[in-house]
Amino acid sequence: MKKIDGGVTAAKGFKAGGIYVGIKKKRKDMALVYSEVPAKGAGTFTTNVVKAAPVKWGIKITKESPFVQAVILNSGVANACTGKEGEINNQRMAEAMANALNISVASVYTASTGVIGKQLPIDLIERGCVLLAEEMADTIEAGNLAAEAIMTTDTYPKQYAVSFTIDGKEVKLGGMAKGSGMIHPNMATMLGVITTDLSISKELLQEAISENVKHTFNMISVDRDTSTNDSLIIMANGMAGNKEITEKNEDYQKFYEALNMVTRELSKMMAADGEGATKLLEVEVINARSKNDAIILSKSIITSNLVKTAVYGSDANWGRILCAMGYSGVDFDPDVVDLYIESEAGKLKLVEDGMATDYSEDLASKILSAKEVKATADMKAGSDSATAWGCDLTYDYVKINADYRS
Amino acid sequence: MKKIDGGVTAAKGFKAGGIYVGIKKKRKDMALVYSEVPAKGAGTFTTNVVKAAPVKWGIKITKESPFVQAVILNSGVANACTGKEGEINNQRMAEAMANALNISVASVYTASTGVIGKQLPIDLIERGCVLLAEEMADTIEAGNLAAEAIMTTDTYPKQYAVSFTIDGKEVKLGGMAKGSGMIHPNMATMLGVITTDLSISKELLQEAISENVKHTFNMISVDRDTSTNDSLIIMANGMAGNKEITEKNEDYQKFYEALNMVTRELSKMMAADGEGATKLLEVEVINARSKNDAIILSKSIITSNLVKTAVYGSDANWGRILCAMGYSGVDFDPDVVDLYIESEAGKLKLVEDGMATDYSEDLASKILSAKEVKATADMKAGSDSATAWGCDLTYDYVKINADYRS
Repeated sequence: MKKIDGGVTAAKGFKAGGIYVGIKKKRKDMALVYSEVPAKGAGTFTTNVVKAAPVKWGIKITKESPFVQAVILNSGVANACTGKEGEINNQRMAEAMANALNISVASVYTASTGVIGKQLPIDLIERGCVLLAEEMADTIEAGNLAAEAIMTTDTYPKQYAVSFTIDGKEVKLGGMAKGSGMIHPNMATMLGVITTDLSISKELLQEAISENVKHTFNMISVDRDTSTNDSLIIMANGMAGNKEITEKNEDYQKFYEALNMVTRELSKMMAADGEGATKLLEVEVINARSKNDAIILSKSIITSNLVKTAVYGSDANWGRILCAMGYSGVDFDPDVVDLYIESEAGKLKLVEDGMATDYSEDLASKILSAKEVKATADMKAGSDSATAWGCDLTYDYVKINADYRS
Repeated sequence: MKKIDGGVTAAKGFKAGGIYVGIKKKRKDMALVYSEVPAKGAGTFTTNVVKAAPVKWGIKITKESPFVQAVILNSGVANACTGKEGEINNQRMAEAMANALNISVASVYTASTGVIGKQLPIDLIERGCVLLAEEMADTIEAGNLAAEAIMTTDTYPKQYAVSFTIDGKEVKLGGMAKGSGMIHPNMATMLGVITTDLSISKELLQEAISENVKHTFNMISVDRDTSTNDSLIIMANGMAGNKEITEKNEDYQKFYEALNMVTRELSKMMAADGEGATKLLEVEVINARSKNDAIILSKSIITSNLVKTAVYGSDANWGRILCAMGYSGVDFDPDVVDLYIESEAGKLKLVEDGMATDYSEDLASKILSAKEVKATADMKAGSDSATAWGCDLTYDYVKINADYRS
């Protein structure tokens, strides 16, 4: 498996585009991802009780449509808490895209992100659908435009792609995502689209993505707020020409690894580019009693405001890490826990058997000053582990969110 | 029932003191609350798996000692994650206080707050115990000194006291608390001491405090971090001379109301004085399907970083409130929810049946600019309600916590 350039247009037969239609003040605000031929579609969506209109639509499409062919996305307005009118607007968005592409409306996913409670400027969006159908292309640049157009407070577009071989054929898999704020995904990320030219059954595609998000997008958190619009959509159009994967064989494992590599890298980018973030924080919990314990403990650490501010201040205030583990709901013996921190500047054992080692505060501060910081908690209670990704909590997070709408 | 001056020294037969011994750099760091006669003691303590040494001691005292007579407290060092040495130091602290007061060590509660992972400077503390026994007094001023000495990043001491009549006798009940950061109590607040001269059985005293914290200290959150040191201790010394309360009669109800008034006011002070906070945010959820639903929904709103930053920016970004309710875990119909905000500047219905009303953004911003802001969510699903208290998330929260130890 190797990393290749691009994102959603990396795989054969996929086109994309990103344009500005005026939903946001200045920046690109509409994107399209299109497969030249009908593709298997699968997705995971927010578990928030308050679900945006496009999320309800996506859940329906995933369940009912044997084939899908396009994802139309907008940023600036989330189309959440918009009632009946919001659902009608969402339907109009899908219809406009279907008409412009001359495909059925049931093969068009929709995705929106932005302010909650505002109606979509549907006339602008309908015009945008026509423009996108004209301007879409299968180039890397076209993929870049799409990744850019779904950004809200993201500071850079997020894309990743890999290529691998199955059944003697070269298969490509790539994706894009946006994140930044209201990021504590539960069953999916804020917005993500993955494309592949692999041939695989719809059932296995769904199974792979559902399993995969548990270890990637569901393991990141910027602010513990699970959005109303979380959507992760994957399309597999079969154009690589491999024999269709219909069981969990070696080929499936290869595909799963490729998927995992792309979603893991996109997840890390999202965490590192959390609103106001200056650092990526990776937390690994090892030797836990169960996988579930490891997941809960690692997520409890990366979501603690006190841990996040300490990381921002490059302060090895490890008591806050133990404290966050302690209130996670997992039962464990604090008196056997070891804690490590590491980065390009070195590695340090801060805590042994629940108590401080004689570590150098200077070195600890140096380690925590890096752009990517990792903390490891050794529970010495079993053999399960989990990794979660987050970011520091900074002045800029407060600034961005104190006046997001203005 | 009426509000009276003072805190832990308001009730008959209680003395207190607060001094500086050098645990912190400059500010007072040791406090004592003492009852002239043996008192019934009860307490609630953190549910964090990582429990500080004084918390383990307090749980034991509460269970095993029929009478208690003193609470010795220090700020600056939490004596958490300090292993066997921490437990020995805690025992020495209790013994030093017991010796200086000439009472049994089993009647002395201990409480510590401050940095996790450091050992107590036990020599300083033993000296402090002797000084406190000499300097303690039953005056309001002495109570003030104690309330001051337990502060960490609090910006003002927190005290409240009331007087009421039971059985023809005047009864007084007062308390002090400290809060500020790592505030998301679970079974108790960070540190709180309540004193009363009421005569009541130990069992009922414990029952009252255990029930009461569910609606007061457990309903506040500054940063969703449940501390390792949360302790709330109540002492009732019977010096008011009423007939001992041994059943849940009218007298018990009077006492419970008095207790509730004091703990509720202390809770609100703690929320308003959250680290870096500029505003108190009160959230009431009404007409919920159950009490538990109302509690979870109101706490989910006050703990959302996105709600807290919007309140800081006086931005009526109500979508974040609905979103925080949506991921709380409570199942509800978002399409019937109404949302209101109010303060001294007025009252506004922002949302009706899950969608924005045609409200004035100007007035909304004015309402949210007040020092005390209330939001109400009407679930229209039942008849249960709950109130939670929090604060805004500001630059100063980040500043304080990025360099807490330096």
